[in-house]
Amino acid sequence: MSIDLEALYLDLHRHPELSFQETRTASIAAGHLRDLGLEVEEGVGITGVVGLLRNGEGPVVWARADMDGLPVEELTGLPYASTATGVDPAGNTVPIMHACGHDMHVTAMIGAVERLVAERADWSGTLVVLIQPAEEYGAGARAMLDAGILGRYPRPDIVLGQHVTPLPAGVIGVRPGPQMAAADGITVTLHGRGGHGSRPHTTIDPVVMAAATVMRLQTIASRELDPREVGVVSVGSIHAGTKNNIIPADATLELSLRYPDDAARERVLAAVERIVRAESAASGAEREPEFHTEHTLPPTINDVEATSRVTAALNRALGDGTVIDPGMFTGSEDVSWFARDAGAPLVFWFWGGVDPATFAAAEAAGTVSASIPTNHSAYFAPAPHPTIEVGVTAMATAVREFMG
Amino acid sequence: MSIDLEALYLDLHRHPELSFQETRTASIAAGHLRDLGLEVEEGVGITGVVGLLRNGEGPVVWARADMDGLPVEELTGLPYASTATGVDPAGNTVPIMHACGHDMHVTAMIGAVERLVAERADWSGTLVVLIQPAEEYGAGARAMLDAGILGRYPRPDIVLGQHVTPLPAGVIGVRPGPQMAAADGITVTLHGRGGHGSRPHTTIDPVVMAAATVMRLQTIASRELDPREVGVVSVGSIHAGTKNNIIPADATLELSLRYPDDAARERVLAAVERIVRAESAASGAEREPEFHTEHTLPPTINDVEATSRVTAALNRALGDGTVIDPGMFTGSEDVSWFARDAGAPLVFWFWGGVDPATFAAAEAAGTVSASIPTNHSAYFAPAPHPTIEVGVTAMATAVREFMG
Amino acid sequence: MSIDLEALYLDLHRHPELSFQETRTASIAAGHLRDLGLEVEEGVGITGVVGLLRNGEGPVVWARADMDGLPVEELTGLPYASTATGVDPAGNTVPIMHACGHDMHVTAMIGAVERLVAERADWSGTLVVLIQPAEEYGAGARAMLDAGILGRYPRPDIVLGQHVTPLPAGVIGVRPGPQMAAADGITVTLHGRGGHGSRPHTTIDPVVMAAATVMRLQTIASRELDPREVGVVSVGSIHAGTKNNIIPADATLELSLRYPDDAARERVLAAVERIVRAESAASGAEREPEFHTEHTLPPTINDVEATSRVTAALNRALGDGTVIDPGMFTGSEDVSWFARDAGAPLVFWFWGGVDPATFAAAEAAGTVSASIPTNHSAYFAPAPHPTIEVGVTAMATAVREFMG
Amino acid sequence: MSIDLEALYLDLHRHPELSFQETRTASIAAGHLRDLGLEVEEGVGITGVVGLLRNGEGPVVWARADMDGLPVEELTGLPYASTATGVDPAGNTVPIMHACGHDMHVTAMIGAVERLVAERADWSGTLVVLIQPAEEYGAGARAMLDAGILGRYPRPDIVLGQHVTPLPAGVIGVRPGPQMAAADGITVTLHGRGGHGSRPHTTIDPVVMAAATVMRLQTIASRELDPREVGVVSVGSIHAGTKNNIIPADATLELSLRYPDDAARERVLAAVERIVRAESAASGAEREPEFHTEHTLPPTINDVEATSRVTAALNRALGDGTVIDPGMFTGSEDVSWFARDAGAPLVFWFWGGVDPATFAAAEAAGTVSASIPTNHSAYFAPAPHPTIEVGVTAMATAVREFMG
Repeated sequence: MSIDLEALYLDLHRHPELSFQETRTASIAAGHLRDLGLEVEEGVGITGVVGLLRNGEGPVVWARADMDGLPVEELTGLPYASTATGVDPAGNTVPIMHACGHDMHVTAMIGAVERLVAERADWSGTLVVLIQPAEEYGAGARAMLDAGILGRYPRPDIVLGQHVTPLPAGVIGVRPGPQMAAADGITVTLHGRGGHGSRPHTTIDPVVMAAATVMRLQTIASRELDPREVGVVSVGSIHAGTKNNIIPADATLELSLRYPDDAARERVLAAVERIVRAESAASGAEREPEFHTEHTLPPTINDVEATSRVTAALNRALGDGTVIDPGMFTGSEDVSWFARDAGAPLVFWFWGGVDPATFAAAEAAGTVSASIPTNHSAYFAPAPHPTIEVGVTAMATAVREFMG
Repeated sequence: MSIDLEALYLDLHRHPELSFQETRTASIAAGHLRDLGLEVEEGVGITGVVGLLRNGEGPVVWARADMDGLPVEELTGLPYASTATGVDPAGNTVPIMHACGHDMHVTAMIGAVERLVAERADWSGTLVVLIQPAEEYGAGARAMLDAGILGRYPRPDIVLGQHVTPLPAGVIGVRPGPQMAAADGITVTLHGRGGHGSRPHTTIDPVVMAAATVMRLQTIASRELDPREVGVVSVGSIHAGTKNNIIPADATLELSLRYPDDAARERVLAAVERIVRAESAASGAEREPEFHTEHTLPPTINDVEATSRVTAALNRALGDGTVIDPGMFTGSEDVSWFARDAGAPLVFWFWGGVDPATFAAAEAAGTVSASIPTNHSAYFAPAPHPTIEVGVTAMATAVREFMG
Repeated sequence: MSIDLEALYLDLHRHPELSFQETRTASIAAGHLRDLGLEVEEGVGITGVVGLLRNGEGPVVWARADMDGLPVEELTGLPYASTATGVDPAGNTVPIMHACGHDMHVTAMIGAVERLVAERADWSGTLVVLIQPAEEYGAGARAMLDAGILGRYPRPDIVLGQHVTPLPAGVIGVRPGPQMAAADGITVTLHGRGGHGSRPHTTIDPVVMAAATVMRLQTIASRELDPREVGVVSVGSIHAGTKNNIIPADATLELSLRYPDDAARERVLAAVERIVRAESAASGAEREPEFHTEHTLPPTINDVEATSRVTAALNRALGDGTVIDPGMFTGSEDVSWFARDAGAPLVFWFWGGVDPATFAAAEAAGTVSASIPTNHSAYFAPAPHPTIEVGVTAMATAVREFMG
Repeated sequence: MSIDLEALYLDLHRHPELSFQETRTASIAAGHLRDLGLEVEEGVGITGVVGLLRNGEGPVVWARADMDGLPVEELTGLPYASTATGVDPAGNTVPIMHACGHDMHVTAMIGAVERLVAERADWSGTLVVLIQPAEEYGAGARAMLDAGILGRYPRPDIVLGQHVTPLPAGVIGVRPGPQMAAADGITVTLHGRGGHGSRPHTTIDPVVMAAATVMRLQTIASRELDPREVGVVSVGSIHAGTKNNIIPADATLELSLRYPDDAARERVLAAVERIVRAESAASGAEREPEFHTEHTLPPTINDVEATSRVTAALNRALGDGTVIDPGMFTGSEDVSWFARDAGAPLVFWFWGGVDPATFAAAEAAGTVSASIPTNHSAYFAPAPHPTIEVGVTAMATAVREFMG
């Protein structure tokens, strides 16, 4: 009797969990893997799960799915929309949503393992399934590696992963070489001097300092990056003050930085620091601003030869022309830590989650970017079908490609 | 046996409470007023206290002290510094501090009532003591009035109030005519479109929209107000986003606006709305921004004749030259609602709370504005002595001036 | 046969001249003064004129009128509007207009001298008439003083001057004590690195540097000046670049700064320098910005006792209530150099130039600030009558007040 | 006797001329072409030159070189640096410099024609040489076409052009497909209301309006373009005001916009207009801003097949590996108008002008972008050798490739 993947997906979607708090999701995934006959270890890197399937001699494939949700309030209006809330690391109660599709990643992985188990007579080798926490913090892969999995499990010959994306369902996108950007998440604290809102001259206003900094940070992309260079400087959060009539002492900015390579990374980080310090000086700040790196993600680079094998296999399995080159993505991933630490090649691909008719209509109307919700949007929700089926086939096919 | 006012002040300072949550403070004040023989009503305007002392024929004086603390983390390092926390209306746990000296206001009022009771043989009339909540929300005076006190208590012939301020202790400041600015507290919600931090082109970034708005709002003071006109546009808080790599959908600004009169108020409010709407349009926002007025405070205008009487009386009581004209203040108060609703004259004065030697040293060094903490600062703390004694004498003297 | 003052005014209005190039105006004024019997010296401080009238024993009065036009294109549409052009110090051909009413100042002075000559039997003393160049550069008074007039002419017992302003014609405004602000004119050169407009990353864009600086300079008025303090930071000109597709190497800003006193001056100058240097640093400039002070004007402070005499005399001469206290003006003047260098008291007053009916209608409609052109506007043009007559009477009356 | 190309180059470099004023340059080029036996027409599109060489049956090749200088003050310090000045269309006297290497283009073209004439026995066909004016205005190609050359001369089978660039001398860069961006040059006039610098509240300050606009325009690149999309929004010039103490009525911005394709062009143009109008509204402008398109340049797209032939021919002629793919350039060209109007393929390549040793040293030091002057810089000056020789060979070789 096969697993009801649609039910699994809807259940996970309804019950998203914040990063490193994915205990329910982990437990469900671990249960299925155990039912399918894998050796299962839980609590790896706080909430991660490792499933091990030894199936004779042959290569070792690490297949990874991430599982955390995001502090986003779901606005899809779907019958299975999330109403979950949780407490974030700052102690605030926040809504939670699977706004990046990790529920789909887990579902497709369970389905792929189920198929691989069913077909175990046709391949031989060792499969290591990684159900990873806290991808959204850029911290979960490191947490699992730091928990020692490279020493405890067979080392990979290849690392595989996949991500659902706003392409039409049925389409696979994968690019040999650089696939996703390197990224840093940086928190900047600006120090002013507080006081009463009616007496600005007795204060050093951190709200103005922060606003000027945000405006100036825009010039890194507009003036300092080569226009042909893929880079992003986003300020994802800004917080200062508690009331309209108290000028606060400090302001906090959270920055997400993206770059194609290490040289650009150095330039952008230097520019961010230069601008933040100068805007602080422009305000006459009495204390230097502070910088805290929340996470650092390496570029996601697909191995050229292995990607070529996956591409060919997926075109065979899903129909010629299924696989396209989607270009480089400005988003980032921590999946590559597994490959980098292991010294193994990586193939990480995207699969479409948008109803093909909806996508085609938007394309015809020229409204794709305006009307198709992207990852992290409060409206992001892959169509269950055929997204689940394509994801299962893609992962199972890619794993089989590298097995004996 | 007299009330230990220093102990009362230190206790109130250690236990500040947020606006409309001043139950402990109200209960302590009510207890003292009752002990002094006043008729006391509690829960007036949520947490306000009214004390009534009928002492024969004569004028009716309303004497008001406000009692709420602020969501500021005390940094004074004083042995009696507050470590209190509370839950603000948004549900966040915040630190609390008596950063505006309302603890001193309550202490001085209790001391003044004690003295007036002791001297009751020397005056006749009716004293109504108002221990007002939520001055910091600009809402407490209205709450007490809306609770019907004008109908339940003798109508005032004069309304009196006083506020501790960063003048040297021993100095009284009061200005005939306009004493404090009119003010509005306005919350602005800016609507963008959220998305992933690495894909800014799919979003309408509310952080940039908010930053541009803050920068543009500075031009109201720098370009639109007559340089000779007293006006302030402060953005006391800015909030958007939860993580570095999610561009949020909205941003919130809390503005404190100050003006000398109604004509300037109209111009500034129009300019704020014009700028906010235009910056929203510059970003290509799909929804108009929203404006919510949190409070509106009328100008605090001292009755010229009554102020002249108070000035003379305080100079007699505290020494000639004690009373100065401090000029108009840009801060605002809700005390004038009592006078406006009752159609009675108002006298509202400031008394110094800074150790005189400290003040003189700062003045000599030219560092008054840099080194003397102002109201709402995390370092604001009046010197207990002689601030308490001067506050008691000032209020008792002013009340006596108007009694038969 | 009397001088046709209307014809003189219209002629001067039609033929404005740039600062230190007022040769035609000076020659006309000198001609009239000579015709009236004064000893006349021309070319004093490049283009200035001094007229000396010794009329027996008695006090020495210096009466000053300035005479330069402005590089503004007149848009009044008047039949006598200027179409003049000239070459400014940078070598550019610019339109010229009497946009500050100095043509009216010269006209009224000639008329006042004519009257004083006619009435010479009724007063005794020495009149020194100063027809001053280059007030708009803040440089003409210094030029005349540096040319040695204090040594060559009788030292003044009083210095008098008047300025036409957008008050109703018939009204005189004068304030004892501080009447006009101190001011500095500062030119800032920002250094970037030029390059092609399509390759911003190879440049350090001085246009962005200048724009960010202008926005930040707004915060001096909005956040650093006490709201009760009269101060202004205006950027009157910004220039960078020659073509859309070449990013230039430099940008130039011309700033006009105003303050009530020397303490505010120090703070504002320090803030300007701090902000300019920080914004240059934010851009990663390879060279420090440069600052050049074009002129420094002291505050214009009316002697209290002498102003009281002038006020009384003008109310007698022009009707009780003619003289009002217009408050402090944020504009600046170089007239006070004459008084400061001589150690003499100064009285400097304003007289209205707007048709009274027009002014009253604008006041009723609440559109004074929107519809009445102010000095330096391309629409500024005093009504010839009764502005000329009031100006003649005011100056002649004030001179007589101080003569024996 | 051969032409002294070095002398020609140095002479042209010393005597740059502004766009559509290249009479001296045109006359020198026409003289050489005539001397070489071509039929020559001058004054084509104001100052353009066409040379016609019929050499038997065969294809028609149009070979184009542009010849105008730029209003840049040369800072190279070279013995043959320009000290020329000219009067630009606004009537201002400006310095002129060959800051984009068009002197080199003309020199190499004359040398190439000389070689082709010498080798005329070895090829057959028709060569049309275009010495084009005003490339810097994006207007010269259109002017020559609008003068009717397509009707008067044999229609091209291929259009060729080359541009000197900061690659090492000896290197050729050419990219099949999109080679240079589409571009618009747009002048924006912002309308405020002028007045005196000390009375900002009576004005609508166009300097602040312009500064806010410049800062907001940065967000098109940072927030609205897909990070993977090549686009640029540069403000090359900003002008407002004449003096520090007059707030002007208007401000002018000159924008250079670049995009990879027509879809991006529409989005960017819409964003520019949206931002400019909104910032005008934020200032409360009483008149809408005005937009004037100075030039529109189509994308420069190299014909894939023809580029492949040129690449092969140049590698043969100059050594294998000479030709690299330099990627897409964000700069723009008007050369493609010739190909588009004629419906012919285009090949447009770049050749290096930097001394190879200097380039290698900069590369080793990681200072290429900082130390190698780019086109339009005041320090841009190709090394005469071997730049001239490579340019001659490249153009002659490419022409021969398409001849019979």
